[in-house]
Amino acid sequence: MRMVDIIEKKKNGQELADEEIREMITALISGDLPDYQLSAFLMAVVFQGMNERETLTLTKAMRDSGDTMDLSKIHGIKVDKHSSGGVGDKTTLVVAPLVAALGVPVAKMSGRGLGHTGGTIDKLESIPGFQVNISEEDFIHQVNRIGFALASQTSNLAPADKKIYAMRDVTATVQQRSLIASSIMSKKLASGSDAIVLDVKCGDGAFMKDVSEARSLAETMVKIGNGAGKETVALITNMAEPLGTYVGNNLEVIEAIEALKGNGEPGFMEVVYALGAQMLLVGKIVSSKEEAYKKMKEAIEDGSAFLKFKEFVSSQGGDVSYIDDPSKFPKAKLTLEVHSDRKGYVNKIHTEAIGETVMRLGGGRAKKDDVIDMTVGLKIQKKVGDMISEGDTIAVIYGNTKEQLAQAEKEVLMAYEITDKNIDKIPMILDEITQ
Amino acid sequence: MRMVDIIEKKKNGQELADEEIREMITALISGDLPDYQLSAFLMAVVFQGMNERETLTLTKAMRDSGDTMDLSKIHGIKVDKHSSGGVGDKTTLVVAPLVAALGVPVAKMSGRGLGHTGGTIDKLESIPGFQVNISEEDFIHQVNRIGFALASQTSNLAPADKKIYAMRDVTATVQQRSLIASSIMSKKLASGSDAIVLDVKCGDGAFMKDVSEARSLAETMVKIGNGAGKETVALITNMAEPLGTYVGNNLEVIEAIEALKGNGEPGFMEVVYALGAQMLLVGKIVSSKEEAYKKMKEAIEDGSAFLKFKEFVSSQGGDVSYIDDPSKFPKAKLTLEVHSDRKGYVNKIHTEAIGETVMRLGGGRAKKDDVIDMTVGLKIQKKVGDMISEGDTIAVIYGNTKEQLAQAEKEVLMAYEITDKNIDKIPMILDEITQ
Repeated sequence: MRMVDIIEKKKNGQELADEEIREMITALISGDLPDYQLSAFLMAVVFQGMNERETLTLTKAMRDSGDTMDLSKIHGIKVDKHSSGGVGDKTTLVVAPLVAALGVPVAKMSGRGLGHTGGTIDKLESIPGFQVNISEEDFIHQVNRIGFALASQTSNLAPADKKIYAMRDVTATVQQRSLIASSIMSKKLASGSDAIVLDVKCGDGAFMKDVSEARSLAETMVKIGNGAGKETVALITNMAEPLGTYVGNNLEVIEAIEALKGNGEPGFMEVVYALGAQMLLVGKIVSSKEEAYKKMKEAIEDGSAFLKFKEFVSSQGGDVSYIDDPSKFPKAKLTLEVHSDRKGYVNKIHTEAIGETVMRLGGGRAKKDDVIDMTVGLKIQKKVGDMISEGDTIAVIYGNTKEQLAQAEKEVLMAYEITDKNIDKIPMILDEITQ
Repeated sequence: MRMVDIIEKKKNGQELADEEIREMITALISGDLPDYQLSAFLMAVVFQGMNERETLTLTKAMRDSGDTMDLSKIHGIKVDKHSSGGVGDKTTLVVAPLVAALGVPVAKMSGRGLGHTGGTIDKLESIPGFQVNISEEDFIHQVNRIGFALASQTSNLAPADKKIYAMRDVTATVQQRSLIASSIMSKKLASGSDAIVLDVKCGDGAFMKDVSEARSLAETMVKIGNGAGKETVALITNMAEPLGTYVGNNLEVIEAIEALKGNGEPGFMEVVYALGAQMLLVGKIVSSKEEAYKKMKEAIEDGSAFLKFKEFVSSQGGDVSYIDDPSKFPKAKLTLEVHSDRKGYVNKIHTEAIGETVMRLGGGRAKKDDVIDMTVGLKIQKKVGDMISEGDTIAVIYGNTKEQLAQAEKEVLMAYEITDKNIDKIPMILDEITQ
């Protein structure tokens, strides 16, 4: 089969045979598939889509295009958790030690942040000494010993995805459900866990802006995961406002520590518990959500979740004294409270804009090799539905120069939509997709 | 404007600004437009199309991407004629000397054949000594002297089209009206004539298989031509069967000579006269079709058209003794009559298949650098609507080996569909588009 015929078929809306998809990925990896044919194919997929079988075959071929992690030496049902990316999303830092404390082995590969969303790896690196580049052997050993390890994704995991993603980025073919789903799932499937819990973020601060889009992406990913033999479930969670209270690297680590100590922001904890319950269920630690919630609350209250986080930090070389005393974390030089210039109710928070403000403060990357300032960020004091009086502090900015603060203040005020009407809070969990 | 944003706009069905289209072609020529972005853009155009303004701007930008011929030194209204390509299409060989004999200066750039369609240049090169690579000066001088010259297209005419066409060919983006029209018209506009008569072939042996497709391509090209300031008209002509009697290089030259002597096959002559009338009209030599037909018939009868052809062949170095005595042309070694194995009426001739049979006999190119055998080909003795008795000769094959003949015989029998019902002849002229 010549590639031009495969493109022609897809262009005409015909289904591709499994063999055609596999040949294409083989050619991509061997360097026999020219960029211009790949990009024409991707654009044809944007218009014609791929069905369930094609998407599963593509994902498996991408999974098999490089190394796959062998986690068989880890005892128990290994559960991976993946977030599609949001603003203030420190969920992994809390839910992973929480379920690990309850017996779910969590062997997690994670990425760095780009654009308006932060990455878990970046956040953890704000803890002095913390190492994310650990050998496969140490990684497996640590999960067996303490139940949780988190490493930076190895470079040869699903290399076909890396090539395809780089091409999508420059040819306006990023936004296509099968392509997004296969990109995420090929890496998850190559990471070797037995079950996968997906957190599909939905709202202004996420890649999926509306719930029907998010649902169809979630359904596609759940089908891929189950089709590839890994029990997979997905939650669609609210990203119409920043998650929790803080946005910024060490600020979010501190918030996570507080959450593990039982002082989490209620909305954030809803997401933590909902995801944790799914992880405990697919990990066969509990047989009902009620049991899951009961156990998780106990693990927070009795300090075992917090202890697991400290074990984890210590195992990966982090300085635990910072976890015991978060006031040791370095702070941004300047702080500025943002006051509301009117009264009313918070109608909307432009969350992507909030993420970009933090990025411009130095807390994120516009380009891949930008260096991150761990101390800067925002405290989001008022959320959607909150009542505001004139002069109330809606947010606090942590930055290093007066110019940065002044600019960020303008942006935060722009990001808040205040209305006269009483607005309902947005539910944190929008949907649950289990098959 | 970044190219990825231009692709995104087109993908979303938005109109591109003229400046964006021009920037894109400039980047293409300077080497700053990566292939993979061009191909993604072309695929987006396949799905979203381009409107009239965008198509005109693209065509002009392609025209201006390289050299443009300056024919201002040629007296009178220079008229170009272009065929979209068919099987047995020797029209230029007859109509160009015919209208030149009547005073229309014809300064024609032509191409070589590829696939199932033959090229005028190839056919003329079957005349010993005939030269198609002539200098611009000689070309202009010849048109002023005898009214007709035909040269191989110079390599730097519309180089953007060359690059885009090469990309379309390998990315399944050939079949798109605006892309086809801009490709043809950019070269025509760069060739410097004052008016253009287009022969859009329609039917199984043409790129446009049905008349509504052909009509919308013709309308697009006519709009481009007029929009770029050249009077342009188009005829849609029948390519549901081979044109005339012969298919093959020197066989078609001999048929053209006979036609110029007044012995043309009636269907072929209908096409010649219809195109000739348009050329005489846009060339302001006549003021009505009736006048055009009268003058053309006279020019055939009084021998002036034939004489013009001889002058033309002689001017370009061809041996005129072959024109005076076509029996001098070399012949294929073997001849085979194909007899019908049943009686009835010719319902259909798979014309693309006929073109490919001639190509496989050696009369055309499968690849760009294949060498052509000038002697081989087919005589199409029965056409659509003809009655056939069992054993009648439907075609004659001219080839060089018994194996070739046997294979061609099978293919010709397969290409003819015979039915019991009386079938109407297909009209030769399907439509005329003047604006």
